[in-house]
Amino acid sequence: MGEARTSVAALRWLDGLELLDQRLLPGRVRWVGVPGAAAAGRAIRNLTVRGAPAIGLAAAYALASEARANPELSQLRRAARLLASARPTGADLARAVGHVLRVIEQAPREDRFERALEAARALHQADVAACLAMGEHGARLFEMGEVSLLTHCNAGALATGGIGTALGIVRVLHAQGRLARLYACEARPVLQGARLTAWEAVQDEIPCTLLADGAAASLLASGAVQGVVVGADRIAADGSVANKVGTYALALAAARHRVPLVVAAPTTTFDMACPTGASIPIEQRSADEVRTLRRHRTAPEGVEVYNPAFDVTPADLVTAIVSERGVARPVTPETVRSIAT
Amino acid sequence: MGEARTSVAALRWLDGLELLDQRLLPGRVRWVGVPGAAAAGRAIRNLTVRGAPAIGLAAAYALASEARANPELSQLRRAARLLASARPTGADLARAVGHVLRVIEQAPREDRFERALEAARALHQADVAACLAMGEHGARLFEMGEVSLLTHCNAGALATGGIGTALGIVRVLHAQGRLARLYACEARPVLQGARLTAWEAVQDEIPCTLLADGAAASLLASGAVQGVVVGADRIAADGSVANKVGTYALALAAARHRVPLVVAAPTTTFDMACPTGASIPIEQRSADEVRTLRRHRTAPEGVEVYNPAFDVTPADLVTAIVSERGVARPVTPETVRSIAT
Repeated sequence: MGEARTSVAALRWLDGLELLDQRLLPGRVRWVGVPGAAAAGRAIRNLTVRGAPAIGLAAAYALASEARANPELSQLRRAARLLASARPTGADLARAVGHVLRVIEQAPREDRFERALEAARALHQADVAACLAMGEHGARLFEMGEVSLLTHCNAGALATGGIGTALGIVRVLHAQGRLARLYACEARPVLQGARLTAWEAVQDEIPCTLLADGAAASLLASGAVQGVVVGADRIAADGSVANKVGTYALALAAARHRVPLVVAAPTTTFDMACPTGASIPIEQRSADEVRTLRRHRTAPEGVEVYNPAFDVTPADLVTAIVSERGVARPVTPETVRSIAT
Repeated sequence: MGEARTSVAALRWLDGLELLDQRLLPGRVRWVGVPGAAAAGRAIRNLTVRGAPAIGLAAAYALASEARANPELSQLRRAARLLASARPTGADLARAVGHVLRVIEQAPREDRFERALEAARALHQADVAACLAMGEHGARLFEMGEVSLLTHCNAGALATGGIGTALGIVRVLHAQGRLARLYACEARPVLQGARLTAWEAVQDEIPCTLLADGAAASLLASGAVQGVVVGADRIAADGSVANKVGTYALALAAARHRVPLVVAAPTTTFDMACPTGASIPIEQRSADEVRTLRRHRTAPEGVEVYNPAFDVTPADLVTAIVSERGVARPVTPETVRSIAT
């Protein structure tokens, strides 16, 4: 029985931050250098890097880059604000940036870069460990021998610093020889499921079946899967979960067919200052994500578009939430608090 | 207050059957001639024409074409079998072909073509009238002044011989000045919502907002729509509805948010020989519909695909079924039977 591992990474620090350009997957593997906060902000907004934990780590490293280029505090505070506001829904981003900025503020001017880089590396290592811990906690929820799981979007190595959140569970089960098959919703409009999750699965030889988002309810009705595993972008104090748009529909279908829905997210994704899902800001993205597919027009001009990047699944539809600290099950404000920090 | 009408058509008989090639929409409007049953079978399978009622009409006209080319009964029976088996889920196809074949069998050899063409034209006219009647029955279900409706796939003029089934309701409300907005799910993988419904809406100046299928549950949660209207490919005796994959997920979200789900289909779509949804054959289509978008690869090679074209929504989630004969509400075997013929 092997260790859960992956050959896939979203970001790395060589002599500076480099991101795997996720916009080009699955067709091309290209690493791009990200010189500072402005470039990192663009890369986060344009989805070169995505996934709440990975975004947080990219921004942390980018702030360290800024500290090397210019250790002035006023400039670094400006860079931190720019990075923290690049995308609104994920909780990890502002937290990671705030953490590195505090380290910088407490360091002597000449040490700011090194301390910031140390802090970013520590966040990265913590995320690697958190993914492994979530994978193990989550895998123990599926005690029925071999299982097939359904996931949405990409909550994998490409979304984190480690083996992934939801895909961490998948990888642990796979390493234990207990994964029959991973079913992956494609996740329109940006197709992170088709382009990223399916690609990760092929890289790591995980048996994977892709489906259109609309086919998930009939898959759940068929009895083919024993669990739905997803990540999260922000988890409110009541256990409501903001995640990639489409998660809520999966949750409704899973509940109808009594298939457990397990949400996996590191403590950095929990936001105890959000009392309920209603207080989570939901990013609206460009109409052209829906009207086109990779520059190919799929809809007539003149049609308007509703394109929220995320939706909120209320806690009553979530069977369990897993963080590196353990499992909240049933999902209540008390159990959520117990695994949130 | 105008009459509900449309500038859009899926098929026409000039000196032979012509189909609007729906694979090219919304980019190009091209009519293609369909010389006989073999060409019509291909056009049905490759989605040049789609939508259960439109497929039935196309096949009826194609059988008339065959009768002109060769009035031999054995040959016409073979053509009818070929046409009836072109796609398995929609109920209208076998019924329309069977009807025209019976007319042919009862006609003198020299009149077979003309009688068959008359029969196809009569089916077409009946569908025009059925769409109008469904639109009026359905519009009366929304008695709360101005409403916004959500639809899935394309149940419009492009799917029928008239103003559409679900879009018939939309067009009647629009003609009455009571439609605030039509929301259209794009309907991956083939994007009939984005390519066809949004195009029909633009042609007929119906205000329309497009969304990814996964965004529908959050739209319903937001309170923006007062009804979900869809068509059907086959309706079983218990009121279960086979329709474009993704309909079931919409039904679950509509039920959660107490938004009525109205299914509109002509009597030709009802199949009283199917006791429940479990007996409806569900077509599985090619993996490349999901792995590609218009020849652009969206997923890695080596990934498997689950691609059912339809799903089944159980009767308990359907608020009302509308045929040209009236409204089944609540949906029970008795009310369904009362509007099925």
